[in-house]
Amino acid sequence: MKNISDTRRAMMARSMALAAAGALSAGAASARAAPVKAATPFRVAFQVSDADQKKWSLTLNNVKNAQDDLGAANVTIEIVCYGPGVAMLKAESEVANRVQEAMQAGIGVYACQNTMRGMHLQAEDMIDKIGFVPAGVVELIKRQTEGWAYIRS
Amino acid sequence: MKNISDTRRAMMARSMALAAAGALSAGAASARAAPVKAATPFRVAFQVSDADQKKWSLTLNNVKNAQDDLGAANVTIEIVCYGPGVAMLKAESEVANRVQEAMQAGIGVYACQNTMRGMHLQAEDMIDKIGFVPAGVVELIKRQTEGWAYIRS
Amino acid sequence: MKNISDTRRAMMARSMALAAAGALSAGAASARAAPVKAATPFRVAFQVSDADQKKWSLTLNNVKNAQDDLGAANVTIEIVCYGPGVAMLKAESEVANRVQEAMQAGIGVYACQNTMRGMHLQAEDMIDKIGFVPAGVVELIKRQTEGWAYIRS
Repeated sequence: MKNISDTRRAMMARSMALAAAGALSAGAASARAAPVKAATPFRVAFQVSDADQKKWSLTLNNVKNAQDDLGAANVTIEIVCYGPGVAMLKAESEVANRVQEAMQAGIGVYACQNTMRGMHLQAEDMIDKIGFVPAGVVELIKRQTEGWAYIRS
Repeated sequence: MKNISDTRRAMMARSMALAAAGALSAGAASARAAPVKAATPFRVAFQVSDADQKKWSLTLNNVKNAQDDLGAANVTIEIVCYGPGVAMLKAESEVANRVQEAMQAGIGVYACQNTMRGMHLQAEDMIDKIGFVPAGVVELIKRQTEGWAYIRS
Repeated sequence: MKNISDTRRAMMARSMALAAAGALSAGAASARAAPVKAATPFRVAFQVSDADQKKWSLTLNNVKNAQDDLGAANVTIEIVCYGPGVAMLKAESEVANRVQEAMQAGIGVYACQNTMRGMHLQAEDMIDKIGFVPAGVVELIKRQTEGWAYIRS
């Protein structure tokens, strides 16, 4: 098993290589730095994978609390539904109104297309204007790899 | 959707800018570096959000195992309870004794004040000496953003 | 509680120290950088801690989807079972065949030895050729500390 000190060593090697690259062009570096698209200080993806209406409500409370406490401008939020959790996003879902409110508040809401295929669900069966991702779990892996926090409802 | 290579590019741009800043003051840099408060090599926040006594016991086993295996001096641990999980921290909780033992072993234990308000719970209804956070989910987002690991019980 | 800006300041201090170290040996740095063992772009550890066959199947679907979508060569995957989730890896498990298929596809599958001890399970009671870790939760903490993504099934 790879241990932590190996990882630290690898990170340090990488940082020093970057530092050296920077040093070689230090004078011009601030001018040359590529424009960086601003990310909010906080980014978080919520996993909803249970057919449990109480968890759906809790998640919708959570995202509101996160916007209220951190400031809506400071946090980017996604709710990613897959497996039995996709039911949260069906048009007839008991929380459909609250999902729409969340989207109006700027929260991204995504259904897993792998799951939809398995459940014979079409886009028109779902809450209007939600987003779709090919695989919910892959979305969550990508987001964490990009540095997002993760909450499993 | 933002893809990984965009993120990598942004990270590299930021690292090179930092490297350049360092290079400009290389001789004095080690003297000028701000003092960094030491963090333990491992830091982990546990989410308890179910009213499930078996999960409470498992979490209390987990934090003990983490201290035993990693060494208590090497790991900082928080248990953050919210939603139905707040019941774990009520004074009459079946695991109240074990929660107190965990706190005595240096583990931080926090109840979500948003949840407590919703359940009409006061501080005096809870296990003595636990901590409180305004919103449990926000605590978990902040900790992960600071680099902590996360375990959902 | 440590706040984010403290963390940022600490990270910046560390980065600048590294940058300075790099600058002092800029000419030789690329030659001197320690060899870095290549990691796949994506790494993810799945936690299975419930005795819930539907979650076991969903997890086994998830790891297959992750390999299909990201490319098996681009993602390193572990499934870590502990607590009631260890039952997924017993020889008589309903998903034993699928677990073996996952291992043949290169996915690491690990049972928690702390849990096995508590359940009086021996290695010979388990699916053939799975791996063992002293404590499942510690494995998940270590992996996240190394930068792996985490999915709680």
